[in-house]
Amino acid sequence: MSNDTRIEHDPLGPVSVPADRYYGAQTAGALANFPISGIPINSMPSVIQALAHVKMAAAQANCDEGLLSSEKRNAIVLACQEVLAGKHHDEFLVDVFQGGAGTSTNMNMNEVLANRASELLGGVRGEGRLVHPNDDVNRSQSTNDAYATAVRLSVIPASRQLRDALADLAAALNCKAKEFADIRKLGRTQLQDAVQMTLGQEFGAFATTLLEDCDRLDETERLFLEVNLGGTAIGTGIAATPSYRLRAIENLSCNMQLPVVGSKDLLEASWDMGAFMLHMGLLKRTAAKLSKIANDFRLLSSGPRGGIGEIVLPSLQPGSSLMPGKVNPVAAEALNQVCFYVYGMDTTVSMAAEAGQLQLNAMEPVIIFSIHNAMELLKQAIGTFARTCVEGVQANAARCETNLQNSTAFATELVTSIGYEAAAELVKARLAS
Amino acid sequence: MSNDTRIEHDPLGPVSVPADRYYGAQTAGALANFPISGIPINSMPSVIQALAHVKMAAAQANCDEGLLSSEKRNAIVLACQEVLAGKHHDEFLVDVFQGGAGTSTNMNMNEVLANRASELLGGVRGEGRLVHPNDDVNRSQSTNDAYATAVRLSVIPASRQLRDALADLAAALNCKAKEFADIRKLGRTQLQDAVQMTLGQEFGAFATTLLEDCDRLDETERLFLEVNLGGTAIGTGIAATPSYRLRAIENLSCNMQLPVVGSKDLLEASWDMGAFMLHMGLLKRTAAKLSKIANDFRLLSSGPRGGIGEIVLPSLQPGSSLMPGKVNPVAAEALNQVCFYVYGMDTTVSMAAEAGQLQLNAMEPVIIFSIHNAMELLKQAIGTFARTCVEGVQANAARCETNLQNSTAFATELVTSIGYEAAAELVKARLAS
Amino acid sequence: MSNDTRIEHDPLGPVSVPADRYYGAQTAGALANFPISGIPINSMPSVIQALAHVKMAAAQANCDEGLLSSEKRNAIVLACQEVLAGKHHDEFLVDVFQGGAGTSTNMNMNEVLANRASELLGGVRGEGRLVHPNDDVNRSQSTNDAYATAVRLSVIPASRQLRDALADLAAALNCKAKEFADIRKLGRTQLQDAVQMTLGQEFGAFATTLLEDCDRLDETERLFLEVNLGGTAIGTGIAATPSYRLRAIENLSCNMQLPVVGSKDLLEASWDMGAFMLHMGLLKRTAAKLSKIANDFRLLSSGPRGGIGEIVLPSLQPGSSLMPGKVNPVAAEALNQVCFYVYGMDTTVSMAAEAGQLQLNAMEPVIIFSIHNAMELLKQAIGTFARTCVEGVQANAARCETNLQNSTAFATELVTSIGYEAAAELVKARLAS
Amino acid sequence: MSNDTRIEHDPLGPVSVPADRYYGAQTAGALANFPISGIPINSMPSVIQALAHVKMAAAQANCDEGLLSSEKRNAIVLACQEVLAGKHHDEFLVDVFQGGAGTSTNMNMNEVLANRASELLGGVRGEGRLVHPNDDVNRSQSTNDAYATAVRLSVIPASRQLRDALADLAAALNCKAKEFADIRKLGRTQLQDAVQMTLGQEFGAFATTLLEDCDRLDETERLFLEVNLGGTAIGTGIAATPSYRLRAIENLSCNMQLPVVGSKDLLEASWDMGAFMLHMGLLKRTAAKLSKIANDFRLLSSGPRGGIGEIVLPSLQPGSSLMPGKVNPVAAEALNQVCFYVYGMDTTVSMAAEAGQLQLNAMEPVIIFSIHNAMELLKQAIGTFARTCVEGVQANAARCETNLQNSTAFATELVTSIGYEAAAELVKARLAS
Repeated sequence: MSNDTRIEHDPLGPVSVPADRYYGAQTAGALANFPISGIPINSMPSVIQALAHVKMAAAQANCDEGLLSSEKRNAIVLACQEVLAGKHHDEFLVDVFQGGAGTSTNMNMNEVLANRASELLGGVRGEGRLVHPNDDVNRSQSTNDAYATAVRLSVIPASRQLRDALADLAAALNCKAKEFADIRKLGRTQLQDAVQMTLGQEFGAFATTLLEDCDRLDETERLFLEVNLGGTAIGTGIAATPSYRLRAIENLSCNMQLPVVGSKDLLEASWDMGAFMLHMGLLKRTAAKLSKIANDFRLLSSGPRGGIGEIVLPSLQPGSSLMPGKVNPVAAEALNQVCFYVYGMDTTVSMAAEAGQLQLNAMEPVIIFSIHNAMELLKQAIGTFARTCVEGVQANAARCETNLQNSTAFATELVTSIGYEAAAELVKARLAS
Repeated sequence: MSNDTRIEHDPLGPVSVPADRYYGAQTAGALANFPISGIPINSMPSVIQALAHVKMAAAQANCDEGLLSSEKRNAIVLACQEVLAGKHHDEFLVDVFQGGAGTSTNMNMNEVLANRASELLGGVRGEGRLVHPNDDVNRSQSTNDAYATAVRLSVIPASRQLRDALADLAAALNCKAKEFADIRKLGRTQLQDAVQMTLGQEFGAFATTLLEDCDRLDETERLFLEVNLGGTAIGTGIAATPSYRLRAIENLSCNMQLPVVGSKDLLEASWDMGAFMLHMGLLKRTAAKLSKIANDFRLLSSGPRGGIGEIVLPSLQPGSSLMPGKVNPVAAEALNQVCFYVYGMDTTVSMAAEAGQLQLNAMEPVIIFSIHNAMELLKQAIGTFARTCVEGVQANAARCETNLQNSTAFATELVTSIGYEAAAELVKARLAS
Repeated sequence: MSNDTRIEHDPLGPVSVPADRYYGAQTAGALANFPISGIPINSMPSVIQALAHVKMAAAQANCDEGLLSSEKRNAIVLACQEVLAGKHHDEFLVDVFQGGAGTSTNMNMNEVLANRASELLGGVRGEGRLVHPNDDVNRSQSTNDAYATAVRLSVIPASRQLRDALADLAAALNCKAKEFADIRKLGRTQLQDAVQMTLGQEFGAFATTLLEDCDRLDETERLFLEVNLGGTAIGTGIAATPSYRLRAIENLSCNMQLPVVGSKDLLEASWDMGAFMLHMGLLKRTAAKLSKIANDFRLLSSGPRGGIGEIVLPSLQPGSSLMPGKVNPVAAEALNQVCFYVYGMDTTVSMAAEAGQLQLNAMEPVIIFSIHNAMELLKQAIGTFARTCVEGVQANAARCETNLQNSTAFATELVTSIGYEAAAELVKARLAS
Repeated sequence: MSNDTRIEHDPLGPVSVPADRYYGAQTAGALANFPISGIPINSMPSVIQALAHVKMAAAQANCDEGLLSSEKRNAIVLACQEVLAGKHHDEFLVDVFQGGAGTSTNMNMNEVLANRASELLGGVRGEGRLVHPNDDVNRSQSTNDAYATAVRLSVIPASRQLRDALADLAAALNCKAKEFADIRKLGRTQLQDAVQMTLGQEFGAFATTLLEDCDRLDETERLFLEVNLGGTAIGTGIAATPSYRLRAIENLSCNMQLPVVGSKDLLEASWDMGAFMLHMGLLKRTAAKLSKIANDFRLLSSGPRGGIGEIVLPSLQPGSSLMPGKVNPVAAEALNQVCFYVYGMDTTVSMAAEAGQLQLNAMEPVIIFSIHNAMELLKQAIGTFARTCVEGVQANAARCETNLQNSTAFATELVTSIGYEAAAELVKARLAS
């Protein structure tokens, strides 16, 4: 980036903007106002893409409504397509921790599109531009419907990626379930010896539980397809026509190939964070299941001599800087820690969702960041766990058999023939021996 | 209760039991072992009822399988019906905080039913009884499927009661929405003056958001209809026949008039707490919405002079021991506090759900208690809020109008005609005046 | 209680009160307004006692200030002493979930004391009483300082009881540490065999970690000795004289035998919940440690054959309704569940503490309930765990030795002589054998 | 970085390492094993520095013990000083989400120092190096004491930075408290008009509450000065001499200018996460206070016409993409969101702290990351809030006076003269007028 700057004015006065940037005064202001985490909004690519889709759908609708010339429409659409192609990635730099309920993100997009569209029309970027960020790109919109719609839709592709990662992990576990189908072993309840089962059943159950969450993720998608586009500032649709609203949503559906629908109560849809809470709750549920699986991997591989030792995890790295030959379940431990982090993100989302006031929830940006952050970390940790741990896990069949034989698992089989109390006496005798 | 006792033996030795109690040795043991909260399991009546249903369905199936005489079956079924009618309420006294993954709750039921059934057959309660708690009442069952099935099914009636309370509150809010339909007022985003709306729209949105949760509660019910009955100890079905399993579930469906189905992966179903996590997450979402509504009630009624003051809450009680004439939004505040408590219960459930190990989650009792506790408190708080606050809320229409007129809400209407920047200049001038 | 009633008037109108009750109109109103949890405030005896202490100290100070006759003072003091002796326990019935920031609790006390003091002076209870709840008992006070002071002071005795329970548990653990001092065993990191240690060291570390929390509890007490008494409604001291304030705090110190001090910034002290957050955070820390200890007990006793099996827990009750002879670590599991509940209470307190607005935090009642609830449950669970589990735990010395001998713990001893890499080769060879 | 690589061997086999890197085989392995968050450990500079300090102190002690030549000692110390000067920042790249309880972080440091020290001695980096990562740099250490010591000490400088930021914010608030000392206004409890106060008192209370947390942060420092250095793998001190331990801690104290002390129970100190829990709980408390202050700023500046409007926040950026002239409290909203995130980090830390098992808590890395992340975000958000919001806040004295005059705040002043009930009647009359 060169050091050259241009001056732009926003309603509060002049602002200096790097000359080679498409973003404008309000983005520059936001960069100065929110030096918080250093994590830019482009770390959530599906948010950027969904917002570009909203702008494209709105431009098309505004043109059809006679509120935007077809030249401007075309230029804005082209600029949106460039954003969708990832071309202006480096322009979306506002911090994910931002006040203003997403206004800075929305204006970042409005400014980039306005300046880029202006160029496409042969104009300049900056104050003399041919397309206006508010009056053209943001036409018939407020942050409170445009941003709100985009962030809801942004969840869907990210959620699908997570679902796919979960399904891949489940497949790897099911693969092992088949491999281990004939290995008899001791089942344990409350960490105490219980009854016989197979190692295949144990791994199959891991797969089952994750596939259920794939289904739940699919079902939850529906909640994010309902959007408040056209509601503008607070859901009353001020500064937008009803026909614009219908067109914009139809365009959005068509362009994104998703069955997007309008909320029935736009007032409520403007402030309600319910969909995010349910989705985050589902992510926490997935984290609970994954953490339980990681814990079981660590328990089953404990030892190798002084523990359960029924499975052997791949040796990824030396386990200790001091203890020679020690190998640790590092992939499972990394997964656990990501799961604990996801629990934290649920707390954050739940706090923020409760903090809405009257016609808006100003805390939506931290909700969006937390959910995307949780999905991304889960996806990475799941993939890593599948690749470096599950795929290479081996059974210690001899140990499985020994643990089973040494136990009192046989007793329950006798209950139906000799009764509970007589069987209990047999167990006592065995353990005393 | 008299001081007379009888002696019973469990596998660990003799236990003294109050002579007039139907419960037996293991219940008495559990009462001694878990003097924790003082809250007995009969504080969750739907748990007791669902467990009686499980025992009834199992007895019927065991008889059809030839594993239980029809005399015993009849006696057990009768005893179950007495429990369902609330007749033995005082027998279910084990603490809700109990180790053993529900074994004490299950044995409490087994013992009460065995002794009562024995009496119904002309026998005694205690050691000479004609019906055995384990070999008859618990036949073909383990706590890990019988209790697990019961606690899942217990959620459904409690959830329906909560749903009804929510729907009633929504109806009360919608009633007010109609009453306030023509009262114009200022909409606010980020607590700043935004654009015009009606007070009716504000109350209508409260109703909408709660009705969505009624729908979600209805949908979640499905998750609790899938049970692991017949899986016994760890899901392998040891000590139970496959045909028993089918019969027992069919009986359960039929008796409870609910479409109960068997889990496909009984191993997974034995330890998975996923349904509870989703349900608790939904309760937290409802709490977030209710807390937001309570907050809005408090904001909108703030003042009466030095705040927003657009609504007037019913005066329930003097607001201060010192400040005369002060009236506080106490019903809303009580609701807020219950909501915070529900958030706490979600933490508890999430921790406990993650703590499952291998073939079981031993922490299920605290999960069940937390969920029922949350549902019950929400139901009470919602009903109280509807009755003492929402039904009597009044609009201060004059204040609504003044707040609107004093504001700059007019400016957004001008954006489509004169543009964003010119309208911004008008606002500046107005605020400076 | 008889069905007779008397009529009293509060500023909102006439209220019917049971004739034989000392409480009055506002308490009766609160009972009707908050039918939420059914848990009355007298479930927190230290709150009732501390509030009686505040009233006594205030009456003494008001008399010295010439604001209350010595007859009334004497009668109020006597009534307070009766409350302190537990005499009017059944009069304090307002729900722990209450709106009004504690006003109902404060008025409950004011009314009981006024009516009882009136009787002691030869007057009646009810409207013709000789002592007024607000103008006499609550003289120079607001709920916002009287209740706030009492709930802070109420933490101290409850916290000391918890500290004592923790110290007793630590003593029981240390007793076992001595008993097990010579039992060599395998130390484990990340559930993998590490190096040699003794079972005594393991138990000693449990004791150490709990004793640290005893120290922290002692230190935190200081935060609750700083009170805002005399600040009245918002900390400006309206309706109270500065000399009253000094006298009242001195009386409180003297009567309670605690070094109570006044807050320096009474405005801040009126709304700040910081002390509760730190204390609740400390309770969560204690819960984390206890849960870890419970987990370790369950791990170390896992098996008895197919797990680590190095310790043997007392058999408290049959472990399974189906599996004969199974014995479960039920005391440890109950402790775990209480710990998860304490985690939930921290969430509740943290939410409520953040919800303060301007000059008050109206959510203080749920904070108080949550903290007392957490302390009481911890105390009970700790005592139960010590008594039923720790005191009877036995070492399986043979298993300890076998686990150690089978392991590769020897290798680390060689590092200093032959180096890390050579030692690692030895381990590889051993594990392959 | 060039594409050239060198081959190194760790106990698991050969690993390819970029030729120009100081780090070695185990770091390269960890980079491949943990592609989770993309956030490297050098994002926590105080962790890197504290770990370098540990290595330096250990090298000095090992030399004095005769376990390391003075040449090697000198070279390692020099290499450490380079790290402390920030010279090898780009070498510390392992992901903050890592399994292995910090082993990868420890080995990253061991390898960088070994290779760099080798170069300083005229040797090469890589396999032929003159200094060994384990046998020399890590001599007498395990990750479980070296890393554990470093991460504790790393909290202190970060905590001091946060304390300073808090103190600066408190100073800015106190500055405003003086400026607003004479502005009379309405105090509010439960959002209802209460009694008179000054705007200066309101701002002074904000400062007071934050200064209390500065004191608490100072006090908590003590907990991190107690370290387990010399305990090695599990606290038994295997592979380290007692005199080494004393020397190493003395060196650490001296070099860091901090009164570092050794833990009395090294076994407990190896797994206990208590200090982190308390510190994180304190950060959450600070977040609760900051969030309450941010909420109050938003409430007091609400309107500007249709709310309380008693203070005017600096206009940082246009508030809306649609509503002209709207200015939002964006700095306060950003602060709120960071506070909610800090709440999330407390959840993460609390989960992870509970997950320790036997002689170690393998989840320490996520605890460290969460705490540093929370401290850093708070510091940034506090600084931004002070600079962009508090320093420029202005009083609307006219509005303060109007709100006060319109209210019934006068009534409480009359209580001491005319009594509570008569004053209540006056208020009723006033509000009806």
